[in-house]
Amino acid sequence: MANLRTPKGTIDLSPPQALRIDQIIAEITKIFKNHNGVPISTPMFELREILMGKYGEETKLIYNLEDQGGDICSLRYDLTVPFSRFLATNRISKLRRYQIGNVFRRDNPSFKTGRLREFTQADFDICGQNLPMVYDAEILKMIYEILIRLQNILEDKKEFVIKINDRRIIMGFLEISHVPVELRSTTCSTIDKYDKFTKLEMIKEFKEKGLNDEQINKIYEFIDFKDENEQVLGYLKKFTESTVEDFSSSTTNMEFKKAVEEFELLFIYLNAFDVKNVKFDLSLARGLEYYTGIIIESCFLNTETGSIIGGGRYDNLCKSISNFATPCVGFSVGVSRVFSLFEPLIIKKDILVGSGHGLMLEERLRILNELWSYGCNAETISGKKINFMDQVELAQKGNFKYIVFTGEAEFSQNILKIYNVEESKSFEIPRSELKNFILETRLG
Amino acid sequence: MANLRTPKGTIDLSPPQALRIDQIIAEITKIFKNHNGVPISTPMFELREILMGKYGEETKLIYNLEDQGGDICSLRYDLTVPFSRFLATNRISKLRRYQIGNVFRRDNPSFKTGRLREFTQADFDICGQNLPMVYDAEILKMIYEILIRLQNILEDKKEFVIKINDRRIIMGFLEISHVPVELRSTTCSTIDKYDKFTKLEMIKEFKEKGLNDEQINKIYEFIDFKDENEQVLGYLKKFTESTVEDFSSSTTNMEFKKAVEEFELLFIYLNAFDVKNVKFDLSLARGLEYYTGIIIESCFLNTETGSIIGGGRYDNLCKSISNFATPCVGFSVGVSRVFSLFEPLIIKKDILVGSGHGLMLEERLRILNELWSYGCNAETISGKKINFMDQVELAQKGNFKYIVFTGEAEFSQNILKIYNVEESKSFEIPRSELKNFILETRLG
Repeated sequence: MANLRTPKGTIDLSPPQALRIDQIIAEITKIFKNHNGVPISTPMFELREILMGKYGEETKLIYNLEDQGGDICSLRYDLTVPFSRFLATNRISKLRRYQIGNVFRRDNPSFKTGRLREFTQADFDICGQNLPMVYDAEILKMIYEILIRLQNILEDKKEFVIKINDRRIIMGFLEISHVPVELRSTTCSTIDKYDKFTKLEMIKEFKEKGLNDEQINKIYEFIDFKDENEQVLGYLKKFTESTVEDFSSSTTNMEFKKAVEEFELLFIYLNAFDVKNVKFDLSLARGLEYYTGIIIESCFLNTETGSIIGGGRYDNLCKSISNFATPCVGFSVGVSRVFSLFEPLIIKKDILVGSGHGLMLEERLRILNELWSYGCNAETISGKKINFMDQVELAQKGNFKYIVFTGEAEFSQNILKIYNVEESKSFEIPRSELKNFILETRLG
Repeated sequence: MANLRTPKGTIDLSPPQALRIDQIIAEITKIFKNHNGVPISTPMFELREILMGKYGEETKLIYNLEDQGGDICSLRYDLTVPFSRFLATNRISKLRRYQIGNVFRRDNPSFKTGRLREFTQADFDICGQNLPMVYDAEILKMIYEILIRLQNILEDKKEFVIKINDRRIIMGFLEISHVPVELRSTTCSTIDKYDKFTKLEMIKEFKEKGLNDEQINKIYEFIDFKDENEQVLGYLKKFTESTVEDFSSSTTNMEFKKAVEEFELLFIYLNAFDVKNVKFDLSLARGLEYYTGIIIESCFLNTETGSIIGGGRYDNLCKSISNFATPCVGFSVGVSRVFSLFEPLIIKKDILVGSGHGLMLEERLRILNELWSYGCNAETISGKKINFMDQVELAQKGNFKYIVFTGEAEFSQNILKIYNVEESKSFEIPRSELKNFILETRLG
C-alpha cells in the first residue's frame, strides 16, 4: 500500500475549505478589477537562473526540479520575480496586472498560522511611470479595501493595521548613523526582527553583525520611535533638515530627504482616497532585497497569523534580470494565511429530486434535466432504497433547501410535491408549474 | 543577463489570453455547480510512490522534484490519481467533486494545438454507488452542456461529437477473438491509434505485437464497424446472444454482455437528459490504464486540436493505492486545448478619469475614490502631460467606455464633462450627479 499523506508542508483542501478559499479570492479579485487590473499567468516553474540572487538568504528555500535532461528549472518562489521576467520578456512598460497562484518555499511549515510550503498568493502590481506616490497611494487604497472586505466576512470583526515605511528612509538613516555600506543590508535584516525580538536580543544581534554601541543606540532609538504619522514625519524632518548633515552630500541622503517629502504627498493622497488604519512605522524593514521605496505590511490584530499582505516598490528588479527597466509597485495577499483566520464555509445545496413511492428513475432524470435547464443546482437520490424519511434526512444532512418529489401517485396525478427542508413543510404544485416555482424561489 | 524565456513546453499568458482562460473556466464551472459539484484542492506535487504504476508507458513523462532531503516527490500528472488518493486518505465513499488546476507532462509540446508540458485541466468526478449508468449518463449530460456553452462563445459555431465505448466491450471482444490475456492491454493501445493510423499501419502494429491474421481481421472488422448507435448495439448483441460462445463461461464475457445491456439503459437515460451528439464508437480505446467501464472522448470537428474532453469509469483506482474502494466516473476538460480554439479576449475598460485643463491630481483622485465606492472599474491618467486629444486617444486604445473629465474650469463650475468614447460625444453633468450617471450606465 502506498503512503497516502500529502508531502511535508502541503495540504489537501476539503470542499468547505476550498469554497472558503474561492470566496476569499473572489473578494480580492473584485478590488483587483475595480482598479482595472488584468490577469496574467506564468509557469509554475522558471529557468533556475532567473530565480538566483533575488531572495537573499532565502534562496536556499527554493524547490528544484530534477535534471531529467533539458532545461534546469525551479518551482517559483513568489509571483513578483516571474512578473518582472514577464515584463522584461515582453518589454512591457505600463501594466496593471494581477496574478493568483501557488508558490513554493521549503520553509518550516506551521499549519495553524497558514505557513505552508505550497501556498496561494494573490498579487497586484502597477508597472509604469507616474508622479511620485500616486500609484503607491493607490496600492495602499487597494490593500485597505481588501482588508475591509475580509473584515466584513470574518465572523469576529478583527481590527487591522497597514504599516508603512520606506527603504530610502532606513538606508538614509543607516548612512547618517555612519553604518558602513556593506553592513546596511544585514542591519536591515535585524531591524526586520523588531516585532519578534526583545531589545536585548536586537542589541546582541546588532553587535554580532559588527555595529558599535553608538550606532546601535541611534538605530534602536530611531526604530523605537512610535507616534502619530504626522509626528513621525516631523521626527524624520529633524534629520533631513538638520544643518549638521549635508543632505546633498550623498545619493543615499538625497533619497532619504526625497522619501520624507514624498511621504507628505502620500498622506495627502491617502486622505483623498479615504484610506485609514495606515501606520508609519520606522521599525518595518521587510525581508526581500528587491525593494527600493515604500514598503508595506499588514495584519489583523490579536491573531497568531501575523502578516497577511506585504508589498512595496521595486524599481530595479526588471533591470537586474534584463536590459529593460520599468518601475513597479505592488502587493501580495497571502491567501493561505488569510484562510487560517476563517472557518471552512458551510456548503448549501438547492434541490434534491426524490420519489415518494416507487423508483421513478426516468421521471426523476427528466425533472433533473428540467431543473438544470432553468440554471438550478440539483441532483437526485442514488440507489434503489426509496423511503420518505431517509430522503428528508439526506436533504437535511446535505443542507438542501428543497426536495422535489415525484412518485407513482404524483406522476399519475401530474403533480409534484415540494418539501421545504428548513421549514419541514410540504406542498403540491402542478407538474407544469415547476418553472414558475423555480422563478419564485430564485434558485435558477 | 539571464535567459528570459519560459521553460520548454510552458507559456506565459498575456492578459487577453488569461481572461479568455478565465472565461472558459467560468463557463465550465457553471455546469459543475449545476450538478452540485464541490471543489477540492490537492498539492501540485505528490509523494512519488503514489504516481508510480498508474499511467502505463506514460510514467516516463512524469516531472520529478530534486531530492533536497525529505520527501521524494513528483509533479502531478493528472487530477484523477490525486483525487483517488484524496478519497482514500479521507475514506470518502460519496462525493461530487470538481478540481481545476495545472498538471505536468514531459511530452513533446505543440503550441498550436494546446499540447503543453504544463496545462490546465478542469475535472468533475462522481464517486459513489448508484444504479447502473445513472452517473455515467449524468457525466455525458455535463460534457454535452459544456460543449454547448463553449460552442456558444466560439466565433464560428463548430460541430462537436462525444464518442463513447466501454472497456468491458473491448476486453470482451478480445476474449472472444482468442487474443491471449497478456496481449490485450497492448492490443488496446494499438486500437487507440485507429484515428491516426492507416489500415496498413494498424495491421503492421498488430502483427508486431504477436496477433495472427485471423485475430487481426476480426478486430479490424469490429473497430471499423460504423453505424447509428442502435445499429452498433444490435451488432454487439449478435456477439453476446450468439450460441457459439458461452457467455457465462468467463468473467470477461459476462462483463461484455453486461456492458451491452447497460448501454441500452444508457441511451434511455441520455434521452431523458436530452443529450445529443453521442456516438457509440467501437474504435475508441483511451490510453490510460485505469478505466474499467465506459470511456468517453470528445472534440470539435474540423479543428487541429483533437480531443478536448476525456473521461470514463475507473472503479478500481482507489483500491489500487489503498485498502479502500469506491466506484468513480468522471471527465477532464483540457482547458489549454480548448483555449487553442479561441482568439484572446479583447479587454474592455469602464472609466478613465482625466483633466481637461490643469493637473487637478487631488480632485482626480477624489473622483476615482468615488467611482470605486460605486463599484466601478476606473483609473486615472498618469504623469503630467495633460492634453485633451491625448487622453481621448489613450481611452480609445485602452477600450474605455467613458472618460470623466474634471479640469480647472469644470472644478470651479462644480461640473464634470463625460466623454463617450465609442460615440466620440461629450456632455456635462453636475458634480453631484456622478452617482446617478453611474447607476444609469450600469457600470457599478
